Amino acid sequence: MNATQDLINLENYLQKIKSREYFTIFPENPKAYPDEELQKGEKDFHSRLNTNFDSLYSKDCEDWIGEEISPYLQVGLGIKYPRFSVEKLIQNAQAVRKQWSQTAIEKRTNILLKTLDAIKNRFAELAYATMHTTGQSFLMSFQASGPHALDRALETITMGYFELTRFAKDVTWTKNLGKFDLVLEKNFKPIPKGIGLVIGCTTFPTWNSLPGLYADLISGNPVIVKPHPKAIYPMAIVINEIQNELEKNGIDKRVVQLAVDKTSELITKQLCENPAIKLIDYTGGNLFGDYVEQLKNKETFTEKAGINSVMIDSCDDIQKVASNLAFSVCLYSGQMCTAPQNIYISKEGIKTNNGVVSFEDFKNIFSEAVMSLVNNPKVGAGTIGAIQNDTTIQRINDSKKNFSDIVLSPETFVNPEFQAARILTPTIVAVDSSQTELYGKEYFGPFSILIKTNSFEESLKLIANSASEKGAITCLAYCTDSNKSQQIEETMNEVFTPVSFNFSGAAFVNQHAAFSDLHVTGGNPAGNATFTDPNFVNRRFVWIGNRYMKQ
Amino acid sequence: MNATQDLINLENYLQKIKSREYFTIFPENPKAYPDEELQKGEKDFHSRLNTNFDSLYSKDCEDWIGEEISPYLQVGLGIKYPRFSVEKLIQNAQAVRKQWSQTAIEKRTNILLKTLDAIKNRFAELAYATMHTTGQSFLMSFQASGPHALDRALETITMGYFELTRFAKDVTWTKNLGKFDLVLEKNFKPIPKGIGLVIGCTTFPTWNSLPGLYADLISGNPVIVKPHPKAIYPMAIVINEIQNELEKNGIDKRVVQLAVDKTSELITKQLCENPAIKLIDYTGGNLFGDYVEQLKNKETFTEKAGINSVMIDSCDDIQKVASNLAFSVCLYSGQMCTAPQNIYISKEGIKTNNGVVSFEDFKNIFSEAVMSLVNNPKVGAGTIGAIQNDTTIQRINDSKKNFSDIVLSPETFVNPEFQAARILTPTIVAVDSSQTELYGKEYFGPFSILIKTNSFEESLKLIANSASEKGAITCLAYCTDSNKSQQIEETMNEVFTPVSFNFSGAAFVNQHAAFSDLHVTGGNPAGNATFTDPNFVNRRFVWIGNRYMKQ
Repeated sequence: MNATQDLINLENYLQKIKSREYFTIFPENPKAYPDEELQKGEKDFHSRLNTNFDSLYSKDCEDWIGEEISPYLQVGLGIKYPRFSVEKLIQNAQAVRKQWSQTAIEKRTNILLKTLDAIKNRFAELAYATMHTTGQSFLMSFQASGPHALDRALETITMGYFELTRFAKDVTWTKNLGKFDLVLEKNFKPIPKGIGLVIGCTTFPTWNSLPGLYADLISGNPVIVKPHPKAIYPMAIVINEIQNELEKNGIDKRVVQLAVDKTSELITKQLCENPAIKLIDYTGGNLFGDYVEQLKNKETFTEKAGINSVMIDSCDDIQKVASNLAFSVCLYSGQMCTAPQNIYISKEGIKTNNGVVSFEDFKNIFSEAVMSLVNNPKVGAGTIGAIQNDTTIQRINDSKKNFSDIVLSPETFVNPEFQAARILTPTIVAVDSSQTELYGKEYFGPFSILIKTNSFEESLKLIANSASEKGAITCLAYCTDSNKSQQIEETMNEVFTPVSFNFSGAAFVNQHAAFSDLHVTGGNPAGNATFTDPNFVNRRFVWIGNRYMKQ
Repeated sequence: MNATQDLINLENYLQKIKSREYFTIFPENPKAYPDEELQKGEKDFHSRLNTNFDSLYSKDCEDWIGEEISPYLQVGLGIKYPRFSVEKLIQNAQAVRKQWSQTAIEKRTNILLKTLDAIKNRFAELAYATMHTTGQSFLMSFQASGPHALDRALETITMGYFELTRFAKDVTWTKNLGKFDLVLEKNFKPIPKGIGLVIGCTTFPTWNSLPGLYADLISGNPVIVKPHPKAIYPMAIVINEIQNELEKNGIDKRVVQLAVDKTSELITKQLCENPAIKLIDYTGGNLFGDYVEQLKNKETFTEKAGINSVMIDSCDDIQKVASNLAFSVCLYSGQMCTAPQNIYISKEGIKTNNGVVSFEDFKNIFSEAVMSLVNNPKVGAGTIGAIQNDTTIQRINDSKKNFSDIVLSPETFVNPEFQAARILTPTIVAVDSSQTELYGKEYFGPFSILIKTNSFEESLKLIANSASEKGAITCLAYCTDSNKSQQIEETMNEVFTPVSFNFSGAAFVNQHAAFSDLHVTGGNPAGNATFTDPNFVNRRFVWIGNRYMKQ
């Protein structure tokens, strides 16, 4: 790649962002990559276990720590990462601020584009790293942490490049004042806000962190990445490659630093509250997310949790609906921020081509669809993956006790490939719409609630209130009536929630594609930012215009 | 105007925003307008006095109130405006939300462009209204409230239109999955955030309020405008014209409402804290501005105060510097948010083509320049205008007592045209750089502080710290050394403050031109928003993407 060529490519990428058409840079199917690459990745993963990740920047680090445990093997990975004090991390970032902010935008862009190619070469190791920290299946790990994450990074670089160059760098400004001209030379500079902090989560360590990381970098801000102590490995690979690429281009590696801590001694708040940290990207639970959002003098970008709802009003074929929904509920055992939880059906039932399906009927149809997917030897284990941590299992088992109508209880399930895998098959419960205290909160993990309402109108009102008050990242609706569909779209859009209609087959509400789907709207309590609208990059720098009197 | 033609024009305006070249739509010189228009405006102004402003929307208003006093005549204007309760204002705005948000962006744009032409026809009345509420001279009132304000409004409409249409409205998204295509129909909608509140100030009632007002409107948000009770008239004219234009186009007038209150019974906080208010634009002092910024669940756009600094290191001709600075300090008696206050000079003096000018020398040169401008019968009265309110005079007289080195004391000054005008000629004091408690705060009005520092480096450090801690909207530097100039630019840009270099003649640091100068950076404590960067409009709506499975 060379800069000119990249800029031509960037124009194409920008067109995709504008048109919202399907677009990707790296194939999502592992089979599209040479066998040797996949094998090398697996080998690299195994060689990495029980070692220090010493290709990362580690000068003057305090010690080497790591406490990751594979949800598939339920043993520690034994990988250790260089630990620095918060003070040292900030010092390092301060030391490189000027160099990075004064690197021309074209050069920053070029370096960042090259990091994508470098990370691509490690897709397979990245997949194993993700699998054995998050509990995602190999396929999902490969896709989410590899091509899909890089698509979002590229989208961010593209958006950033064009926003950072949207005004002329220099202009001769001439104002005629009758007898003479007033002439000023002006320059316009996007000044980076400061040091960025990217706080990762355990379930999507790269997909959720790369947009913020690249948005900070393209805008000229050095970044400290603080992954969850239980899911460091994937981001260590990414940071490793970015550091290498920086060094190759004569830039100090410390422009991107990995910050690691222990579960027993977290440093996240200390980092957040450091005055030098001006930008915070956060993915995770609401408690910490709310804390991040209220911090003073910081620009924050949060993706927290919400309650994603499904409304089933009417459809052609109820089996297709049940299968689609079963997949969305089972995929990575409901540990996606986009997974549906609350399924609203009117007591009048679901109108289909084959007559009305009652609420009671749907309980059976849906639980059968879920179990037939889980028990499908070809796809079951790969779909549900593993549960990232014990707390999720404990919480679901505890929560279940509050429900009297258990439609589907978790069953014993052994993944033949990973006998030790931490698995909990989906739980389905049913409630009446009056039981708001039961369904009015998030149950993270494989837990679905069927809610019987009095009418279409009540369903819609409850779903909209839930999005408005508790937040929602997605909403899925099955509706064959175009007036009602329009009503759903308008009502949900008013509470800043997007709607997916009549998904069946290979279209799943959980999936948000880069260059087309805006992930999290930023308009309801599920988060205050969006991958990737103009605000996602523009809030990271400040436009300054200087004026010189022409001598 | 028709929509197509407007769009072609808008493309041209967008090019100006990108290039930052000089651009205006309406001439700033009153002489460019027909005499009859100016005479009609004066007549309209006089007929308006002591009447109800009954062309404004007033259905079911509670009563008619007004307490404006002319700083030139020091008598009440007697104009009364329809008063509504906060509850009623919110109800009205809620009632029209859907109509306005569902008005196509092209139609909204077209209506708003037409309002500019309508307001143009009232430039002269607007000038008298501004003069007799703010104390600005007629010329400044005409320019700031008329053409300059409308330039900024047009800039906002242009930025808004292109941001609101930056993504395709609809796309057929096709992803090949090997044996078949996954096809989704998607739509993308910029959903307005809610009701906007625009809080005006006494000194620039339209110039400072129009950008936020038009940014809310173009994004589909209804707006409640709450001017200062002492400066309602100019915005009443603007709102009157917008309401008329809305009505002509079949849109409910209540999309823009005027909210008036009494000094003794302010409703601003009540409006701010109403949950339906989602957007707040504020211009004014820091105390209330800080309150606005900390409000939860609101998008806020503030322009508060800062301390604007001047550094005089070196120049060709000290007289030119003194004259330029004198004008900037005298213009509207320092009541501009962009007016310089603190003037830093090293004890080593100012290097000029005619030798070094010492700090002591400059005291005299500067005070003479100020008084020769003030006492110039052709321009003095028109430059200093009048002081908007008694508090400013009281505060300056009180503050002066804390300074031991008074370089220039206010003198008696009578504006021959307005014998009763409230006037205070500029005060200049001198301090040492160690006296931070004296110069480390804003003195609103005609008050300048000459600060003697130990070196160039100390001056720069103090100026940067002041901008970073107290905020700054402008910085003016006189420096003939290009290395030092670069150092000033970099250091001040780091604290998000723009620098104007070596202004003389007709270039004044106080003036920020639409389509070129970014007013307030949003990066230091002087405010959190910018006229007009992409954030200024993008933060007012939320992008939502809906997806439909192709049947």
